[in-house]
Amino acid sequence: MDATMRIERILGAALDGAAAGPPGLAAAMHHGVFPRGARVRPRLCLAVAAACGEDDAALADAAASAIELLHCASLIHDDLPCFDDAAIRRGRASVPAAFGAPLAVLAGDALIVLAFEVLASGAVRHPARLAALIGIVARATGTPFGIAAGQAWECEAEIDLGVYHRAKTGALFTAATLAGAVAAGVEGEPWRNFGESLGEAYQVADDIGDCLSNASRLGKPAGQDAARGRPNAVASLGVEGALRLLDRLADAAAAAIPPCPGAAGLRALTRLEANRLLPKNLSRNAA
Amino acid sequence: MDATMRIERILGAALDGAAAGPPGLAAAMHHGVFPRGARVRPRLCLAVAAACGEDDAALADAAASAIELLHCASLIHDDLPCFDDAAIRRGRASVPAAFGAPLAVLAGDALIVLAFEVLASGAVRHPARLAALIGIVARATGTPFGIAAGQAWECEAEIDLGVYHRAKTGALFTAATLAGAVAAGVEGEPWRNFGESLGEAYQVADDIGDCLSNASRLGKPAGQDAARGRPNAVASLGVEGALRLLDRLADAAAAAIPPCPGAAGLRALTRLEANRLLPKNLSRNAA
Repeated sequence: MDATMRIERILGAALDGAAAGPPGLAAAMHHGVFPRGARVRPRLCLAVAAACGEDDAALADAAASAIELLHCASLIHDDLPCFDDAAIRRGRASVPAAFGAPLAVLAGDALIVLAFEVLASGAVRHPARLAALIGIVARATGTPFGIAAGQAWECEAEIDLGVYHRAKTGALFTAATLAGAVAAGVEGEPWRNFGESLGEAYQVADDIGDCLSNASRLGKPAGQDAARGRPNAVASLGVEGALRLLDRLADAAAAAIPPCPGAAGLRALTRLEANRLLPKNLSRNAA
Repeated sequence: MDATMRIERILGAALDGAAAGPPGLAAAMHHGVFPRGARVRPRLCLAVAAACGEDDAALADAAASAIELLHCASLIHDDLPCFDDAAIRRGRASVPAAFGAPLAVLAGDALIVLAFEVLASGAVRHPARLAALIGIVARATGTPFGIAAGQAWECEAEIDLGVYHRAKTGALFTAATLAGAVAAGVEGEPWRNFGESLGEAYQVADDIGDCLSNASRLGKPAGQDAARGRPNAVASLGVEGALRLLDRLADAAAAAIPPCPGAAGLRALTRLEANRLLPKNLSRNAA
């Protein structure tokens, strides 16, 4: 079974349980998770687990899914009227637009909780790995350095943009790599540089997408950074400069892969994925 | 160290880490957790752990604190403009009133995440107990039967009031008892009836408080059930009827305590606590 099928299967199973509760909440959670986005973070997690010599597919699946559930939860809360007030996400109505703010708040909450529940359920064969995995995903999601912290920096008058991007976007990429390693029974920390470089690359690709795509390609409103006065790599470096930066970050990520059984394959995958992040009209191997 | 001091100490330590992140978020989280409410749920968790012959104080502390953090998170989100829009909580401004909806959403999110992080950190000596503890608190918080589900039933046209109260209020009481047992290394399930009876007793006491207290005693607006058309035991049974029901539920809880080293002490504590839940002018031993 390929990585994407594994991820969709376990996400689907995790969400099935919600059907026994309030129907509106179950529908809002489903809408926030399906149909799939790019699933970049869970695929990264599974790729690292495989490169490390994955010995417990259920645990790697659980770690990957937990990370995607937390990502989806953060998007739902980002789209609330009190933040981005976004009508569109992944090419259709956002969860707040489709279900209202109350169910959007609760769907995000329930998905955060579900992420930890899925992780615990997946650790049956290797309970000794669970505490480290919980710590990794929690630090990437909460505060002081996780997604909630990143979003909360938007409420501050003074903001360090590096700190902001590392928390809002980078932290979950780093967590995906660390969690993939720990799920496979190896140490997570040596994977930090790889994850951080990939997180920065993703941010630059997102900046390029925001500037150059139209909304239908992007699945969400384009030009939001300029509209909201947010920093953007294209605005500061130009398109060519941003593309060169993306290349350098992909190189740095590939060079940061620690020695492991699947290092060569993961290096190749890293370059492929960096290119896949770009809008299709900019992909260097678009044919 | 008594139970309350243990709880305040570990909650304080857990929140200290937030100071390295966005100051507004750290302040909103602190405001939502301190100064303390009654800490009914974490004290219950510690009482069960002690009655079961607690062998790992750090793990019992972590379980109790995780449950209180999740409770505080749910109150913060309940007070959002899109739900109760409550200006007052615990006798002063609610988190949304004091910090605005964006930081209130994020403070709730970050407290949910922190609860799981605290739990994982506390399980160092007994990693084999962690997955069960995560499952217990997650089921009490998410959907289909936890707090998020309970709150989401308010968004449905048809609602089974028993299901609603068990999810919104009862689930975390049940979790507190199960988690206390599991943190002490014994099976959790035999404690379910005890927790469910206590959860119902708490709901009845809360109903009595809502009808009979004034806002300054209650620390939140009184008469909210009648104003919002919510079911209330006093409305359906009268004051005396509701007090008799509370007594019966406290008896049922005391009778449901499974055999354990501290059963006698816990039975006495149960009756004391049921009375403490009442507004002071109604307490049978108020002197």
